Amino acid sequence: MWKAKIVVTYKSGILDPEAKTIQHALGNLGYRHIENVEAGRYFVIDFDASLSKDQAENLTKEMCAKILSNPVIQKYSYNLEEVNS
Amino acid sequence: MWKAKIVVTYKSGILDPEAKTIQHALGNLGYRHIENVEAGRYFVIDFDASLSKDQAENLTKEMCAKILSNPVIQKYSYNLEEVNS
Repeated sequence: MWKAKIVVTYKSGILDPEAKTIQHALGNLGYRHIENVEAGRYFVIDFDASLSKDQAENLTKEMCAKILSNPVIQKYSYNLEEVNS
Repeated sequence: MWKAKIVVTYKSGILDPEAKTIQHALGNLGYRHIENVEAGRYFVIDFDASLSKDQAENLTKEMCAKILSNPVIQKYSYNLEEVNS
């Protein structure tokens, strides 16, 4: 059984107001020494046992590109892990 | 210079309506073979060059526990990477 762990973040150069707000808030709360904050989304998708690794990977790529991220402003990365069901 | 990559997810047993909605939407869009979806937050924090690894790690733990996650319902994990500034 395959499990995909997916991270979606903004492409560099795209302003991320949420990350800037967190960075600002951390500074206000007294956390110094922070140069930059990025924020993004994390997804874990469990596939059922009928899928091969290739099928799981193709599905993961398609879902990342079409649904879980906006390819105009975001990038994604993933890794697949085999788990015992 | 140290960089912390942080993942915040719900503890098991905590209902995550967002993940359930994504799972349902994927099913409606024709994506079969998906047994479970988890959703979470992803953060990358760059520390400045004045911090040692221990200091960066302590700060990361504190920010995760106090600000970036709600420890009642969420769990976090992180890893620290050294980068050349």
